[in-house]
Amino acid sequence: MSKLLSSIEEAVQAAGLKDGMTISFHHHLRNGDYVLNMVMEVIAKLNKRDITVNASSVFDVHEPLIDHIKEGVVTGLEVNYMGAKVGKAISQGIMEKPVIFRSHGGRAGDMENGSSHIDLAFIAAPCADPMGNCSGKYGPSACGSLGYAFSDAIHADKVIVITDYLVDYPLKDSSISEGYVDYVVCVDQIGNAEKIVSGTTKITKDPVGLRIAYLASQVVKHSGYLQDGFSFQTGAGGTSLAVASYVEDMMLKEGIKGSFCMGGITGYLVSMAEKGCFETLLDVQCFDLDAVKSIRENPKHQEISASRYASPSAKSCAVDSLDVVILGATQVDTDFNVNVHTDSNGYIMGGSGGHSDTAAGSKLSIVVAPLVRARLPLVVDEVICKSTPGSTIDVVVTQRGIAVNPEKQELKERLKSAGLPIVEIEKLKEMAEKITGIPKSVTGGSQVVAQVLYRDGSVLDTIKVQTEGIGKRSL
Amino acid sequence: MSKLLSSIEEAVQAAGLKDGMTISFHHHLRNGDYVLNMVMEVIAKLNKRDITVNASSVFDVHEPLIDHIKEGVVTGLEVNYMGAKVGKAISQGIMEKPVIFRSHGGRAGDMENGSSHIDLAFIAAPCADPMGNCSGKYGPSACGSLGYAFSDAIHADKVIVITDYLVDYPLKDSSISEGYVDYVVCVDQIGNAEKIVSGTTKITKDPVGLRIAYLASQVVKHSGYLQDGFSFQTGAGGTSLAVASYVEDMMLKEGIKGSFCMGGITGYLVSMAEKGCFETLLDVQCFDLDAVKSIRENPKHQEISASRYASPSAKSCAVDSLDVVILGATQVDTDFNVNVHTDSNGYIMGGSGGHSDTAAGSKLSIVVAPLVRARLPLVVDEVICKSTPGSTIDVVVTQRGIAVNPEKQELKERLKSAGLPIVEIEKLKEMAEKITGIPKSVTGGSQVVAQVLYRDGSVLDTIKVQTEGIGKRSL
Repeated sequence: MSKLLSSIEEAVQAAGLKDGMTISFHHHLRNGDYVLNMVMEVIAKLNKRDITVNASSVFDVHEPLIDHIKEGVVTGLEVNYMGAKVGKAISQGIMEKPVIFRSHGGRAGDMENGSSHIDLAFIAAPCADPMGNCSGKYGPSACGSLGYAFSDAIHADKVIVITDYLVDYPLKDSSISEGYVDYVVCVDQIGNAEKIVSGTTKITKDPVGLRIAYLASQVVKHSGYLQDGFSFQTGAGGTSLAVASYVEDMMLKEGIKGSFCMGGITGYLVSMAEKGCFETLLDVQCFDLDAVKSIRENPKHQEISASRYASPSAKSCAVDSLDVVILGATQVDTDFNVNVHTDSNGYIMGGSGGHSDTAAGSKLSIVVAPLVRARLPLVVDEVICKSTPGSTIDVVVTQRGIAVNPEKQELKERLKSAGLPIVEIEKLKEMAEKITGIPKSVTGGSQVVAQVLYRDGSVLDTIKVQTEGIGKRSL
Repeated sequence: MSKLLSSIEEAVQAAGLKDGMTISFHHHLRNGDYVLNMVMEVIAKLNKRDITVNASSVFDVHEPLIDHIKEGVVTGLEVNYMGAKVGKAISQGIMEKPVIFRSHGGRAGDMENGSSHIDLAFIAAPCADPMGNCSGKYGPSACGSLGYAFSDAIHADKVIVITDYLVDYPLKDSSISEGYVDYVVCVDQIGNAEKIVSGTTKITKDPVGLRIAYLASQVVKHSGYLQDGFSFQTGAGGTSLAVASYVEDMMLKEGIKGSFCMGGITGYLVSMAEKGCFETLLDVQCFDLDAVKSIRENPKHQEISASRYASPSAKSCAVDSLDVVILGATQVDTDFNVNVHTDSNGYIMGGSGGHSDTAAGSKLSIVVAPLVRARLPLVVDEVICKSTPGSTIDVVVTQRGIAVNPEKQELKERLKSAGLPIVEIEKLKEMAEKITGIPKSVTGGSQVVAQVLYRDGSVLDTIKVQTEGIGKRSL
């Protein structure tokens, strides 16, 4: 019995790919990923049509998808995040069927509850054995955690592991088990190692970013959650990491021993754990090589699946136990709804990822963003796309002031008493508009180019086509 | 949100246990397990009726099951192995519905393919956090691997984790994830640590056992499989360990680097891996405290689920890649069928465990057993219970000679050329009967007390009631 086939083409044929099927990919190789493009090239060459691509995220490296869509090879796209290149094309209406956006937890949950069916999953595996046991921790394209790929492996009808580092059976320290894998293909390179990890995992030096981060850290400090057992998630952006840095200072100074740090893991969070700020790192994705090294070597640094991270279909998930999350935003509206899907002109350039999952699960969700960006205000009457419901956002921190969700009166009082610059969210909007003027309202065509599903599967919002570069709020 | 309840009773009520439901247990605490009895006492107290107990194994410590059966609390029993105490009562016909026997792989596989449904699973967890992340590696009742419990956790409708060592969220190095767990109960003790691991994991000193082991090791040596990449499974019995010891000597002498060692893991196998005989230990269950320590500390020592071990419903499992397995037997017949379910009088006192799984998956399956035991011959015309089909058994090694399955002519020739005492299996039977005389045929009543399912779900054999201490071959 051997699962090892000699080419992606042979594996696609063996798996019985047919027109109309749904195939899936995960995004741990990020902008260095070769696998999605290699597979789609094979599928196009085989003259398959009407394929739906469910990829946990699509990056700019996946630009060739645009041609596959134009040529009818791909007619459906389901993602948790979409980079600006494919995003712009989608916003221009190149695909008839709307893109389906989910959150990281929602994607796993929808596979678990059966509402999202995958016919054929492709696992880009930095190392694998010939029976399909695989891991992201080892090999020349090591990416660390394979967190998002677990659901695909477990729930897809057929699973193809594609690796560039084939080891003897049995792979030690494997993440995804052979029991889920049908075929294994070894290729020259699954990715460009230099681009697998983004270079954007440095603390910001921008004074505005630092001011926002400092204020956010003060919100954390005075929220009451910063005590022994504290759990924390923050992104890889410069401002988010600056928040982590301020939080670290407070934890070390006060000897606070946190429980876990979660999400996409950076070297910065690894070093916080090493300094004793956190007992454990729960890692659904590594953002840099320090994190990759750590997940390989540090037993406190644990790989978790997207389901364990955030699935609403699981009996519980880690976001349910999260104290504080730091989140970004393109836009926030006066109901605290957040847009992370489009830019302020209505073009798709992002997605929820774990945004709405962590906002819903955490005890305290803090949005950090500059009041004005590219001469456009952060706070608007109504976001172009509702990515995360305002009911799950507690605090919005800008360099000019902090708005607290009116549902959180007690928190608001605490923060006020601590002397933080608390303002109404309408005030933030006013302040921004004093700088930018009132922006033109974004108009769009009638075609729906994307549907944003909330983590429970309900439709949160739709995104409309942008025919002239300026769209209109979708409703 | 809290899953932590104050008693087993509360958890059973919260999970909605109803008459007629199927509940499950795993057997890693072996003869030291308190959990099955505690739970059944609660269920009896709650006046539940008609419960089916699916336990990966039932040991003598679970003798109270007999009363629960007699009182109608339990009316169905599904196991992979049953100790002699409960076995004898079952053989005497105390339960109307036949016991269902599966193999370790078949039990996992039947849950995966839906033919075995668990309403409520109880996970005896040596450590757990309040959300149900749990592991067998830590705590006063540490048992190491929780391999058999994974299927229960993944597939049962409701899952209750019972622990005596509750740790802060999130448990580091967890085996079973919170996503599968509904409730957590912390009790005083889940088991008697001294009895969790059996004391029977020492190499035999009996000259007959040593002779058999030596001959078996010579079969391994001359089979052609003992080379770099060699993979091996052997049980915890004295003779099996003696085989391991002879194999170790050969491997060290010839510098052979094996790939993996599998199954229930003992300290002996751990030390073989430490000496470089094997790259990896794949551990579905720890048999002694050295193994428990090793799985906690040695990254080459990996916990695997029963599915990964041997599920025929998975896309592959580890037994498919196994070179050589050493197996025991109560009886072997002249068609090489093996009985490990009953004693020679027809009383239930065992079960397949991984016997038929490894026999089917391995390249070379070797049965080791003395030619005569308790004045009864090993080799008979027809085994009382067909536990493992003869078509999957390659070699039977006794102290008086080695029989090779006639389907394996090439192997037979190899072993003959090596000067090993190869005889026909009928000759083994003759030799035994010269010592014991021809045994009385075992008769039994008409009531079927157990069905033995093969790993693919088909019925391999049935076991009949023993009304007078002497039964009859079931057909």
